[in-house]
Amino acid sequence: MLRTVIIGTGHVATHLFHAFYGANTVEVVQVVGRRESSLAKFAGAVAVSHNFEQLADADLYLIAVKDDAIAQVSAHLTHKKGLVAHTAGAMPMHCLLPENRGVFYPLQTFTAGQPVDFATIPICLEAQNKASLGILQQLAATITEKVYEIDSEQRKKLHLAAVFVNNFTNHLYNIGETLCQQAHLPFDLLRPLILETAQKVQSLSPTQAQTGPARRGDQKSIQAHLSLLANPIHAELYKKISQAIQKHYEEEL
Amino acid sequence: MLRTVIIGTGHVATHLFHAFYGANTVEVVQVVGRRESSLAKFAGAVAVSHNFEQLADADLYLIAVKDDAIAQVSAHLTHKKGLVAHTAGAMPMHCLLPENRGVFYPLQTFTAGQPVDFATIPICLEAQNKASLGILQQLAATITEKVYEIDSEQRKKLHLAAVFVNNFTNHLYNIGETLCQQAHLPFDLLRPLILETAQKVQSLSPTQAQTGPARRGDQKSIQAHLSLLANPIHAELYKKISQAIQKHYEEEL
Repeated sequence: MLRTVIIGTGHVATHLFHAFYGANTVEVVQVVGRRESSLAKFAGAVAVSHNFEQLADADLYLIAVKDDAIAQVSAHLTHKKGLVAHTAGAMPMHCLLPENRGVFYPLQTFTAGQPVDFATIPICLEAQNKASLGILQQLAATITEKVYEIDSEQRKKLHLAAVFVNNFTNHLYNIGETLCQQAHLPFDLLRPLILETAQKVQSLSPTQAQTGPARRGDQKSIQAHLSLLANPIHAELYKKISQAIQKHYEEEL
Repeated sequence: MLRTVIIGTGHVATHLFHAFYGANTVEVVQVVGRRESSLAKFAGAVAVSHNFEQLADADLYLIAVKDDAIAQVSAHLTHKKGLVAHTAGAMPMHCLLPENRGVFYPLQTFTAGQPVDFATIPICLEAQNKASLGILQQLAATITEKVYEIDSEQRKKLHLAAVFVNNFTNHLYNIGETLCQQAHLPFDLLRPLILETAQKVQSLSPTQAQTGPARRGDQKSIQAHLSLLANPIHAELYKKISQAIQKHYEEEL
């Protein structure tokens, strides 16, 4: 059994706790967080503490706190024997102060209250040495078969790519919803299209899947669309993304 | 039985043909297209013709051709008694010359060779009169329960919204793939995140689902991301979309 302490009480910490709970190769021995109120939801199932001086001894400390707090939290662990790993996409492994360090980054968007199927989620691992990598691999294997070894530089770029396909995509959905509202139409009309657009690239490359006026170089449709956009921010995004699509396929020729 | 002629041989025509084939309230009596080679795939199952002078008599003529060709094709139908409807999002109903006209617009992205579940697809209807609307409703009901009455002005805006959530979103996936390639990482890493991002807004509003550096106003992360983007087009899109997100939530406060 891999004795594990989870530090943090947010979405990632909570989803990981539930994923490990009941696994027969991992035992979460403690959840640690600064705020007592956030610990309440764990208190019935596991030992909790809001005092970093009372950290249990463990094989692994998993830090799932805000990026800015990772280094500071890791300072409490320099005297511990166990492996210390963070779960952040954008932070290098070396922001952790203990020398026995690693990264356990689940590449997914987590929402409070929405269950997650970890079996579908890639876990990106990095470790200071082979023994520590082995521990992280053991942990990852309990929840998914999609395990990747990725260094800090790659992970930084992967996290940036995730911002494009997740945060920025969601904003395009948001614009879609706004345009529906302006036409007194329900957003439900767009939901199946949104899902199919995502499903299409599960097997195809996005380059193959691209359609639309910009892909066809259809300036008449582009102008007609621009004339419909009352919000100048929407119009500018429409122009910029259309230009980017046209440029992408020009380069291909 | 609703005797129907499908005019066109592209993705929309083909998917509609398969959806109606075997339905017990619709009979596709003919498929008409200019190019004989494109008609071959229908020839075993239904009467085909590439001659607009040989159009069968029918209750309904469904025009699924390129936007620019709709008016011209409809000119061959002015002497027919049946209802003439096109399937285009961006074209007004009045681009059809026959007076007995309507629109049957399935809001989805169609790919050659990929099966479509029409039950999940909204069909947007418009018609010149109530009787014609009834015919289109009967047709739509054979393939989906998601039937909406939407006029030409609304449909134009809906089609524009669809460009944002489908074509533009796909380009963001494309950028994600490019960034992965630059870091020597497989696009497979992003696929589950893409799907979850789309699944999240099936129940939530995109406004609720928004996360990321721009949403948090996290300038440090934004600057770090911009410094990673080697392609100036990617950097500009990153900036513009981040500004749009920040602006959206400022306005909300």
